[in-house]
Amino acid sequence: MGENQHIVTALVSNKAGVLNRVAGLFSKRGYNIESLSVAFTEDRKYSRMTIVVNGDDYVLDQITKQLDKLIDVKHVAELNPDKAVNRELLLVKIKVSPERRAEIESTVRLYKAKPIDLSPKSMIIELTGESNKIDGFLQVIREYEIIEMARTGLTALQRGSKNIKQFKDANEEDING
Amino acid sequence: MGENQHIVTALVSNKAGVLNRVAGLFSKRGYNIESLSVAFTEDRKYSRMTIVVNGDDYVLDQITKQLDKLIDVKHVAELNPDKAVNRELLLVKIKVSPERRAEIESTVRLYKAKPIDLSPKSMIIELTGESNKIDGFLQVIREYEIIEMARTGLTALQRGSKNIKQFKDANEEDING
Repeated sequence: MGENQHIVTALVSNKAGVLNRVAGLFSKRGYNIESLSVAFTEDRKYSRMTIVVNGDDYVLDQITKQLDKLIDVKHVAELNPDKAVNRELLLVKIKVSPERRAEIESTVRLYKAKPIDLSPKSMIIELTGESNKIDGFLQVIREYEIIEMARTGLTALQRGSKNIKQFKDANEEDING
Repeated sequence: MGENQHIVTALVSNKAGVLNRVAGLFSKRGYNIESLSVAFTEDRKYSRMTIVVNGDDYVLDQITKQLDKLIDVKHVAELNPDKAVNRELLLVKIKVSPERRAEIESTVRLYKAKPIDLSPKSMIIELTGESNKIDGFLQVIREYEIIEMARTGLTALQRGSKNIKQFKDANEEDING
């Protein structure tokens, strides 16, 4: 996590236009979204959104307050990275020459990554982990020429037994739940 | 994949407002986004976005054409699920009672999922896979009471050695690249 990086998590209505309105609140303030992932939850009426942004604490505080006022935003909170688990998924397609295949496969094993598609000239590799693990792997794999890649961006949950509805009122989350 | 489900992938400028404009094109047509994930690529100037939507083919075709016209959208394409690899990441926090812990751990092992946080009353589990694997696991785990969950939504890459810039002009992707 960079120094000014923040993880915002929100429970929102799963309907057209909500993502647009949420993203709009950030962009109106010139706040670039580093990564965003959103998908429906166990209750299809709601989606869970995880947003990583880089920037000023005060402005972010204003944005989350505005988010909280949106009727389609049920709950919103900033996650403390020290009290949350966070993961990211990477798919990366690299060039593979016959001479370097063994070397690449060894790197893939070292990172506990998975080759999930092979062609005579390329390989798609899957890796899951914290962002710094993904970044580290990309640094190494970059040497083999990246054809294309897609990462999901961070998704995260607060540690302990509370959920987003409860930990807003209990910032000092008790790890013993 | 549902019958009318589509995977749209796009390479976009990594700057404020782009996500907003892309999401806006979908919501303007009442097209709900099932899941979306976006994060920067190996070149920080660009982000890769994967969007799953459910709906009419014709309308989607119009949307992708409009996306293609946006100056900040470098490339956009619909992925054929049969010619793409797709993965999703789930974090789910469930209630755990001492009596059921062993049973839960056995389910987790069966799905090759990973427990990544434990409290006396709860467990956070991580699972990566295709969407139907994630859905299946959630069906089973639901029995133990889900406290909260976050999934990244789908991310996907076309199989073979081409990238998004090339396969638009080569819909019949040659697996021998």
